[in-house]
Amino acid sequence: MNFLSDTTAPAHPALIEAIARANEGFAPSYGADAISARVEARLKELFETDLKLVFAVSGTAANALALSVLCPSDSMVLCHDEAHIHRDERGAPEFFTGGGKLLPLPGAHAKIDASALEDALNQWPADFVHAPPPAVLSLSQLNEAGCAYTLDEIAQLIEPARAAGLKIHMDGARFASALAGLGCSPAQLTWKSGVDVLCLGATKTGALAAEAVILFPSVMDRFATLQARQKRSGHMAPKMRYIAAQLDAWLADDLWLTLARDASCAARRLSDGLARIEGVSLAHPVDGNEVFARLDGSVAARLQAAGAGFYAWPDGSARFVASWCTREDEITALLEAAAG
Amino acid sequence: MNFLSDTTAPAHPALIEAIARANEGFAPSYGADAISARVEARLKELFETDLKLVFAVSGTAANALALSVLCPSDSMVLCHDEAHIHRDERGAPEFFTGGGKLLPLPGAHAKIDASALEDALNQWPADFVHAPPPAVLSLSQLNEAGCAYTLDEIAQLIEPARAAGLKIHMDGARFASALAGLGCSPAQLTWKSGVDVLCLGATKTGALAAEAVILFPSVMDRFATLQARQKRSGHMAPKMRYIAAQLDAWLADDLWLTLARDASCAARRLSDGLARIEGVSLAHPVDGNEVFARLDGSVAARLQAAGAGFYAWPDGSARFVASWCTREDEITALLEAAAG
Amino acid sequence: MNFLSDTTAPAHPALIEAIARANEGFAPSYGADAISARVEARLKELFETDLKLVFAVSGTAANALALSVLCPSDSMVLCHDEAHIHRDERGAPEFFTGGGKLLPLPGAHAKIDASALEDALNQWPADFVHAPPPAVLSLSQLNEAGCAYTLDEIAQLIEPARAAGLKIHMDGARFASALAGLGCSPAQLTWKSGVDVLCLGATKTGALAAEAVILFPSVMDRFATLQARQKRSGHMAPKMRYIAAQLDAWLADDLWLTLARDASCAARRLSDGLARIEGVSLAHPVDGNEVFARLDGSVAARLQAAGAGFYAWPDGSARFVASWCTREDEITALLEAAAG
Amino acid sequence: MNFLSDTTAPAHPALIEAIARANEGFAPSYGADAISARVEARLKELFETDLKLVFAVSGTAANALALSVLCPSDSMVLCHDEAHIHRDERGAPEFFTGGGKLLPLPGAHAKIDASALEDALNQWPADFVHAPPPAVLSLSQLNEAGCAYTLDEIAQLIEPARAAGLKIHMDGARFASALAGLGCSPAQLTWKSGVDVLCLGATKTGALAAEAVILFPSVMDRFATLQARQKRSGHMAPKMRYIAAQLDAWLADDLWLTLARDASCAARRLSDGLARIEGVSLAHPVDGNEVFARLDGSVAARLQAAGAGFYAWPDGSARFVASWCTREDEITALLEAAAG
Repeated sequence: MNFLSDTTAPAHPALIEAIARANEGFAPSYGADAISARVEARLKELFETDLKLVFAVSGTAANALALSVLCPSDSMVLCHDEAHIHRDERGAPEFFTGGGKLLPLPGAHAKIDASALEDALNQWPADFVHAPPPAVLSLSQLNEAGCAYTLDEIAQLIEPARAAGLKIHMDGARFASALAGLGCSPAQLTWKSGVDVLCLGATKTGALAAEAVILFPSVMDRFATLQARQKRSGHMAPKMRYIAAQLDAWLADDLWLTLARDASCAARRLSDGLARIEGVSLAHPVDGNEVFARLDGSVAARLQAAGAGFYAWPDGSARFVASWCTREDEITALLEAAAG
Repeated sequence: MNFLSDTTAPAHPALIEAIARANEGFAPSYGADAISARVEARLKELFETDLKLVFAVSGTAANALALSVLCPSDSMVLCHDEAHIHRDERGAPEFFTGGGKLLPLPGAHAKIDASALEDALNQWPADFVHAPPPAVLSLSQLNEAGCAYTLDEIAQLIEPARAAGLKIHMDGARFASALAGLGCSPAQLTWKSGVDVLCLGATKTGALAAEAVILFPSVMDRFATLQARQKRSGHMAPKMRYIAAQLDAWLADDLWLTLARDASCAARRLSDGLARIEGVSLAHPVDGNEVFARLDGSVAARLQAAGAGFYAWPDGSARFVASWCTREDEITALLEAAAG
Repeated sequence: MNFLSDTTAPAHPALIEAIARANEGFAPSYGADAISARVEARLKELFETDLKLVFAVSGTAANALALSVLCPSDSMVLCHDEAHIHRDERGAPEFFTGGGKLLPLPGAHAKIDASALEDALNQWPADFVHAPPPAVLSLSQLNEAGCAYTLDEIAQLIEPARAAGLKIHMDGARFASALAGLGCSPAQLTWKSGVDVLCLGATKTGALAAEAVILFPSVMDRFATLQARQKRSGHMAPKMRYIAAQLDAWLADDLWLTLARDASCAARRLSDGLARIEGVSLAHPVDGNEVFARLDGSVAARLQAAGAGFYAWPDGSARFVASWCTREDEITALLEAAAG
Repeated sequence: MNFLSDTTAPAHPALIEAIARANEGFAPSYGADAISARVEARLKELFETDLKLVFAVSGTAANALALSVLCPSDSMVLCHDEAHIHRDERGAPEFFTGGGKLLPLPGAHAKIDASALEDALNQWPADFVHAPPPAVLSLSQLNEAGCAYTLDEIAQLIEPARAAGLKIHMDGARFASALAGLGCSPAQLTWKSGVDVLCLGATKTGALAAEAVILFPSVMDRFATLQARQKRSGHMAPKMRYIAAQLDAWLADDLWLTLARDASCAARRLSDGLARIEGVSLAHPVDGNEVFARLDGSVAARLQAAGAGFYAWPDGSARFVASWCTREDEITALLEAAAG
């Protein structure tokens, strides 16, 4: 009954096998290997566009690298108040941007409120030398409440942001989950919606440690800078083939979407079950593999007594995360423990 | 005949197997797993002391993290002019220290000249508000010419540096090679000689991507800061068990020393052979797995024609790097091609 | 009728004369001159304590220098959402702290709400490696709404902050105005209330360009670092005597308090008059030399037609700033124009 | 007999008077005042070109601001090993560039050796992702040995640097001295020679605290960034008119050149006299207001006994600096004391 985090889950065996297969003979280092090239080609197909990318071993690194080529040091990133980049990355964006600022915006279910965005754009104009101007709008997909922005919701935020000259960053640590749920194409969810840079995370969906920072054509001219910063931040791993191999296997035969769908199915079974239990109310819609629930004292006590693994969220709710490998019997056991 | 770099070599199979074994069930993330704890315990044994450590996926990251807890942003690192931190890390130390300065010092065979160090300490006093004071002495072991500092040579540099209040950083990207050659204990080569922080690299000696930043007792009080910076720089990988597993296997049964010795043996066979060929002279002593040789035009042409992989070093020499998996027949073939 | 800002006003003639007097013969540079020493001695008397200080030429510099010795780069400053350091310094605190974070807190009249502070301290704990911990509480006195925190209000904020291990920074760009209004001693308003560092501004109260960053005994051990950062940021002016001379004259015979009182009197005459005019309502209490008023359209139009200088504040109100040299007839003219 | 530094000298009375005159009524803040505009117009005339500028209160600030818009954080500034930016600014360039690197180059009399520059450009190529590429060549005029680069010498360095894509920074803390000695036009010595940014210092030549960072047309598109950084670093003084007034008076009627010539004349009288004294040898040509001399023990002892003020330079020589106000009798007294 481990629902603590998808980062405590093991990797999918196909990725371990891919690493073992990649371990043959010599290969060019620092990303010039054949597997890296194959992943790049596959991503171009999947996203139906030219693109450039670098790999990283954590979502924090991917986000910070992405923001570092979008946000000058004297400028600002607009994000939700609960955004991972604001709350859970120890100031990595501030570090990588050389002292850029993050402006936290409110909104229900960890989605930025469109009028709060409008206010921020008005209050922090582009040409006021005394204040950091907004340079980036950052959206998390899934977001930190486990919710996915719909294409319409994305458009409502991206359009005014782009009109004000901002670039758009998407934190896709759980992008596969969002995509699987929304049923649109990767292209629609990103560059066709105005996203400039996607941080595509595999780690939370079955990889060991593999993330990609993807520059779409609108910002591909910043690729040399991105590579320089990847090196400068210690994220240009010498033997890159082992990261590439993970992504290669993850993207093959739509494994990434299968893993995401399995985790989301498990989350839905869990949330449906929890919703029926007295003393439990869901805090947010369940759009992916995360369930946030408010538990009354007796439910929480029963779960703890049963040894259920979940996380006490700062807002007072309980977070349950399903993984690609969550088993039916674990869900049943958790629901039984909760129901008492 | 690939002698380009030990970063183009594959990983040792035992490490791949260790990763596969680590992929069982759920495990705490961010370094709180059992394998990470086992590696820490093993390193305490090996180094015969208490210590604290964090993992990283590149030597650049390890060095920069180490320097960031030793060198305040308004201070200076003394290093050799050819040091990897100065020449090959895209300013990572400057980035992680928040704008610290690196002062390049001269010295034959990439070893810092003791009188040059003395001059630097005199010219840059600790209490002059107008200039960055030296805060760190950084030594590479093996260094960038493939040479190992002897214990005496280390003492000659570390003693005046410590007397001036500096902390000592050791870039051990090829520490195993140096250790194997010198025949002293890990403790003697590090904290017993006055080293405060060791960056212990496994990647160049058979790992996929595994480095450890080791704080010895003299600076263990900086561990919380080190962890914060590891997180802040994106190097606190969520599923840390896969990095730990590599080091676990690497240190088991002295595999690390075996791999280092094998590579050094290959390098010595290669250098002995090259030294006998007309038109070839060795540029530096061969203390580990790297051979630097000056080739006259015809030798270089024959090697290129034979498809031998080596690297044209900035100083005009040719660098040949042996790996744990370099085969006898490759050496023979290279020597035959060179001899013509 | 210039009420745009106290930074558009001229300097008091006594300070010009002091500069001319200081221009005699040679004097040690970088702050080692006799006038600097005299100012330091005078401040010790005034604040009834030992202290250390450096000078700067802008409030932005003073605040950023102060925060740079209080807030590590991976930590956070808590401040009001309207704080000058957050809204009007182009990210100087982020720059000087090496990427520290500012967390904006709400509260009426630009005073931090005590419960919002409590929430922030709970949500951002000191020992959570994944988020920047709060390291500093910053209070502006006068604040950005022209209001002064009372001693009780200060205590309500400083006590829980200190209990959580934070240091306290006071942005005193208009400290003289606050002090004159509150009627307490400089010591009471600062270190006796738990303030660690005061940025004492003279520029807005009659100086040409003179600010002091004052370290109280609780943080005096950071003085060497403060000096290093003063140098490193280009604020250690070579001929410091001319900044010192301004403060010397400003503090002599309580000139600073006289100038602050005159400006505050003017502001009160202005606000009393405005409050009586139909279509005008005061937005905030007037505790110093600033008046914020909401003007209906016809009042605003009449003022503009009359050429009155004031500033359209981001919140929709109009800001009128009185200076040490604001004349009675200007106030009368403005009120007549407003009344129509 | 104070020859310690031109920063210990008083300001010229004309500048004090200009400040007093500027202290009339209200004036726009942050550089939008009429005097600032007049200085800008005057500099355009003097330099015979369009240009953009910001003011600062120290040479360290001016240099760091200039470099911050020329050198990306992952790149490098080439400068002489004795350059003020390398030796005497506490890492300000590293701070303002966000962790840029300074590469010290050798050369006699503090002039960069042309072949050393060539070597550096070869060793640090523009397109090597693993190392910071050179982005800026910085020349000091006067340099740190009191010498002026001739137009030919400048061309020899600037041409290969520009061919390699570098921008050119000139540290002109004593630009007036160099210009007065070389007898060429300000335009010839700067943008016509390929200089992109000049830091024009008045403080060492008779001002209280006034420096200008001048962007020539080749880099004028970076002006908004320069202004943002001026603000962000606390160097956008609110009441800028008082800095502008100094430069206004300094440039009027060629006062700046008169003051520089007077100081250089004094230096030449001093050096001519010293050269004739037994036990004294000049260390460098005297191109401006600085004299570096090697003194044998008895001369040094006599000077100290006489209370002569000079500075023991790190290379073992003695530095004597003449100022605009150095009197004939002081020189005579110093020479008599030295001669014994």
